[in-house]
Amino acid sequence: MPNILADEKDVRFALFDVLKVQELSKTEAFASFTQDVMEMIIAEALKFAENVLFPLNLKGDKEGARFVDGRVFSTPGTAEAYRALADSGWLTARESEDLGGQGMPNVLNVIADELFLSSNFPLMTTAHVTHDGAKLIELFGTEEQKHLYMEKMYGGQWTGTMVLTESGAGSDLGAIQTKATRRGDGTYTISGSKLFITGGDSDVTENIVHLILARIEGDPPGTKGLSIFIVPKIIVNSDGSLSGVPNDIVCTRIEEKLGLHASPTCQMTFGENNDCIGYLLGKERAGINIMFGLINPSRLGIGAWGTGTASIAYLHALRYAKERIQGGALDNPRNRVAIINHPDIRRILLTMKAYTEGMRVFVYYLSYALDLSRVSSSAEERERWSGTVDLLIPVLKAYCSEKGFEMANLAVQIHGGYGLSAEYPVEQLMRDVRTATIVEGTTGIQGMDLVFRKLPMEGGAVFADFLAAMDDVAGKMAGRAGWQAYIDQFKRTKAGLAEMPAAFSRQTAEGNKAFPYLKANLFLEAFGDVIMGWFLLRSALVAEERLEALCREKGATDAASRDALTAGDMDAVFFQGKILTAKHFIGTMLPVTEGKLASIAWNDLSAWEIVERAFGG
Amino acid sequence: MPNILADEKDVRFALFDVLKVQELSKTEAFASFTQDVMEMIIAEALKFAENVLFPLNLKGDKEGARFVDGRVFSTPGTAEAYRALADSGWLTARESEDLGGQGMPNVLNVIADELFLSSNFPLMTTAHVTHDGAKLIELFGTEEQKHLYMEKMYGGQWTGTMVLTESGAGSDLGAIQTKATRRGDGTYTISGSKLFITGGDSDVTENIVHLILARIEGDPPGTKGLSIFIVPKIIVNSDGSLSGVPNDIVCTRIEEKLGLHASPTCQMTFGENNDCIGYLLGKERAGINIMFGLINPSRLGIGAWGTGTASIAYLHALRYAKERIQGGALDNPRNRVAIINHPDIRRILLTMKAYTEGMRVFVYYLSYALDLSRVSSSAEERERWSGTVDLLIPVLKAYCSEKGFEMANLAVQIHGGYGLSAEYPVEQLMRDVRTATIVEGTTGIQGMDLVFRKLPMEGGAVFADFLAAMDDVAGKMAGRAGWQAYIDQFKRTKAGLAEMPAAFSRQTAEGNKAFPYLKANLFLEAFGDVIMGWFLLRSALVAEERLEALCREKGATDAASRDALTAGDMDAVFFQGKILTAKHFIGTMLPVTEGKLASIAWNDLSAWEIVERAFGG
Repeated sequence: MPNILADEKDVRFALFDVLKVQELSKTEAFASFTQDVMEMIIAEALKFAENVLFPLNLKGDKEGARFVDGRVFSTPGTAEAYRALADSGWLTARESEDLGGQGMPNVLNVIADELFLSSNFPLMTTAHVTHDGAKLIELFGTEEQKHLYMEKMYGGQWTGTMVLTESGAGSDLGAIQTKATRRGDGTYTISGSKLFITGGDSDVTENIVHLILARIEGDPPGTKGLSIFIVPKIIVNSDGSLSGVPNDIVCTRIEEKLGLHASPTCQMTFGENNDCIGYLLGKERAGINIMFGLINPSRLGIGAWGTGTASIAYLHALRYAKERIQGGALDNPRNRVAIINHPDIRRILLTMKAYTEGMRVFVYYLSYALDLSRVSSSAEERERWSGTVDLLIPVLKAYCSEKGFEMANLAVQIHGGYGLSAEYPVEQLMRDVRTATIVEGTTGIQGMDLVFRKLPMEGGAVFADFLAAMDDVAGKMAGRAGWQAYIDQFKRTKAGLAEMPAAFSRQTAEGNKAFPYLKANLFLEAFGDVIMGWFLLRSALVAEERLEALCREKGATDAASRDALTAGDMDAVFFQGKILTAKHFIGTMLPVTEGKLASIAWNDLSAWEIVERAFGG
Repeated sequence: MPNILADEKDVRFALFDVLKVQELSKTEAFASFTQDVMEMIIAEALKFAENVLFPLNLKGDKEGARFVDGRVFSTPGTAEAYRALADSGWLTARESEDLGGQGMPNVLNVIADELFLSSNFPLMTTAHVTHDGAKLIELFGTEEQKHLYMEKMYGGQWTGTMVLTESGAGSDLGAIQTKATRRGDGTYTISGSKLFITGGDSDVTENIVHLILARIEGDPPGTKGLSIFIVPKIIVNSDGSLSGVPNDIVCTRIEEKLGLHASPTCQMTFGENNDCIGYLLGKERAGINIMFGLINPSRLGIGAWGTGTASIAYLHALRYAKERIQGGALDNPRNRVAIINHPDIRRILLTMKAYTEGMRVFVYYLSYALDLSRVSSSAEERERWSGTVDLLIPVLKAYCSEKGFEMANLAVQIHGGYGLSAEYPVEQLMRDVRTATIVEGTTGIQGMDLVFRKLPMEGGAVFADFLAAMDDVAGKMAGRAGWQAYIDQFKRTKAGLAEMPAAFSRQTAEGNKAFPYLKANLFLEAFGDVIMGWFLLRSALVAEERLEALCREKGATDAASRDALTAGDMDAVFFQGKILTAKHFIGTMLPVTEGKLASIAWNDLSAWEIVERAFGG
């Protein structure tokens, strides 16, 4: 049975052949992470995802988190899996040794994100939120807070939550109503109702550390009046032991929802009896800044989730297409064949392969950039990588979450009627990942972040430099047989994309203030398409070079013997697959991207001009 | 509270202003269906969908059909709703009076399809399958069979099923293994296992009439060896009463599935004890021809379902967007506004409006064409309309089912986190309609039907003539202020589409047999886009003319008074909405369609050339 979560060969190819992340081991910070070590860690992660996380999530979807008498009960096996995750060091993999961590680079940790989030988001979201809560306490907490809360969270003994959303405050956190009142002893009384709280109640560990956004009495409205508080489920003694005294927190219900059934999404009331104790984290009114310090890694994680889901969906669709006998062969209709032989099925599969592999390199690249923004030797380099991360995060988050859902949807289609059945995991994949385009900032919000905050960075130079860097691979490809039309298509599409910021500025200057808002989403999508094209082209270039070397090595000098090699030799077949994946994407997707660019350039503003009543209803 | 399933004003506009279907009442066959009568029937249908069908489906999704001790139990209220549907005449609306019908035109009946299928597909699929079974018995059955089965099915006393699929025979019915053995008395013994049988068991009525595809012993393999049999759940006496003797049929399980929870999808075993009696319908080995005689109306119904779902999704998203306060206004960020004021939300809403209204006219147009193919006065006209129906059916089925799902998905996105919650109906809409791109021939199969069976009709003339007919409205629009760029865009896209059949032929002649198979799907999509553009343009032209007349009537002769009118007067607002909807679609969607056409024209064949092993996995 083939590996069904991720193609390990492809993971290694992306990391070590395309991006060459093993270079990181030349830096002092990551000296111990040689390619051998990395490969071992990847293999372990894959095994854990396959054997523990994925099966638990299939079960968790059917059984779901249950809400009984005001308490949440998780799917049997969840606490054990969480313990195993903590014990194997994944909660603190990126942290320093004094925090119990391994100092792992982001680019290695993100592989676990890709595999773990996509194979069991319900469990992993608890791990992520707990990690992030601990990280905030590490960065902004007092020594006492670190001792009382952070250590237990990093250690996996307690879980954490992020308590932000209210019924009137979703994307717009400035509208938060929850109050904090000074008790006079330096602590606060929290009161308010929150919803969509992931893991708001849980039986996975014996205590929960909530981080809550609230407004201290008298502080101004909007986001700048928000502070952040540590609010434990069970009050903690000064020696770190549990007092046994429950804080004044009630979980009032859990959501019945489309996917992620094993993940309890809670409605919570804090301070119903006016006795919910909270401890200020960091300074007053610094809540939003503290909370959003982790926004890049969080959004990167969501992109990794979408990418991992695409990978699982692709591999399941591929297996089904190889096994399902239906219909006749194109060349001989009497010959009943597996559906992978039908052109339209091949088209869909190769599309799924292209997105999966392109997104995978994208996710690794950005995580690698995050590492390089910290460990590159020159300040200039660090700044450049930091700019790249900031520029691309909204694209990665939105694009990979949208495409993750689309790929899961295509996997359902490949399965036909069986794709709708709970017997196959693809419909669950689709339901689960549907959340990804909404959490951590919707796709619409990422588009605005890209156009209004990221494009203007350094007067547009960050964007322009990133596009310019793409010329490198196009240049190296240019002389190769069979590539000219593809290179032309890529360069033309990229050139079209490069013109868009000027169009936004021009329209804004002409008074069409709504124009860039209307076009932001499609611009982000087109940018993502071009990035896919770039990474697939880079992958194909490596494959071309490796294939060439292989042909030389095997003495395959003419077309016929080369064809024989690419039809038989495992590595040659893999490289040929990379080459055709890139060609398929560039030749079939990028022409559509040009259409998207033409759509952006069209200055139709009907959606802005139409009066509300003309929408009908 | 606004009407939440369909905008009745828009339904009437599409029928009576754009398509002028009231002309039908000038024909003898439909003389009684005047506009007044039609409007009354539409209002009644809408009321029934809103008050009975939609609420029952919301309940049915949560409770689901249950399978207990080998029997299926439906959601409480289902039998009553089915009775009400039959009593109000909808099961036989299109049939003649001697069959208990009203002789209703298709274009009127399809409005019920749009409303009913989308508000409660589980119930309506039973009604459709029962109707279709009765219709086949009407067309091919003996007088006795009509008396024994058809009358009860049309009357709503008994339900019916279509029993086709087997585990190895889905899209490929030729692979059916179920056997029929002659018993010597003219009847047959049926034996085999079937699955995905909608309503295979049911407690909605006291008997079920299965129509089963099976192969008589000794008949050839493939579809041409299949015959069709009437197989009642309970054996029927010769006087039409129930014998009480159950036929040898067992429902072995019902599927746990993504959506349509109220609709039992059954696995069935026929003849486990070698005593399942079947009665041949029509001639031996005529099964496929008999079964596929109803394929056009069935596929039209699925398109109507997608369209109705888009409508419900749009109206729910619109209502939510008007009510949900979140974030600041573009011109004054301190002013917190409903999200319908945000440009990106408006863009999504207007996109949903455009697809909903374009698909609505498309569905009505094709149903009207079906009527005209029967009642037009000249044989030439009838033939022309019949050709139009055949050409467009695969486009309508695939396009409206795909877009129905996409629009439901957009409605989820507009709702943010609430969109994932079972408290709002949009996630259910998305799950339910996901089936539409699979049943009655997948999207891939529709693409092949279009390219290989429909484009070649009359040497390509049916396609060419249909495109040529679109020039009419473009011509009438041409002189109007503010339209030139839109007309140019429309004509350019249409011209690109018109070139594609030649490209298919050229590539095939050059030996690239796979080319049209690889491109069929995108071609269908692009064709659908152009059709949307055409119908939205036709709607806008009517709106322009009506708005002009209104301006004259109200004395609004200058720009300012015209603006005041289109901002205030209900009709003027509606017409302005139509105009901007068309502009939005043409200015933002059709440029992307041009990209799709460029993608089709690209002769990249990577998906065909890649060897199976290079897909990885």
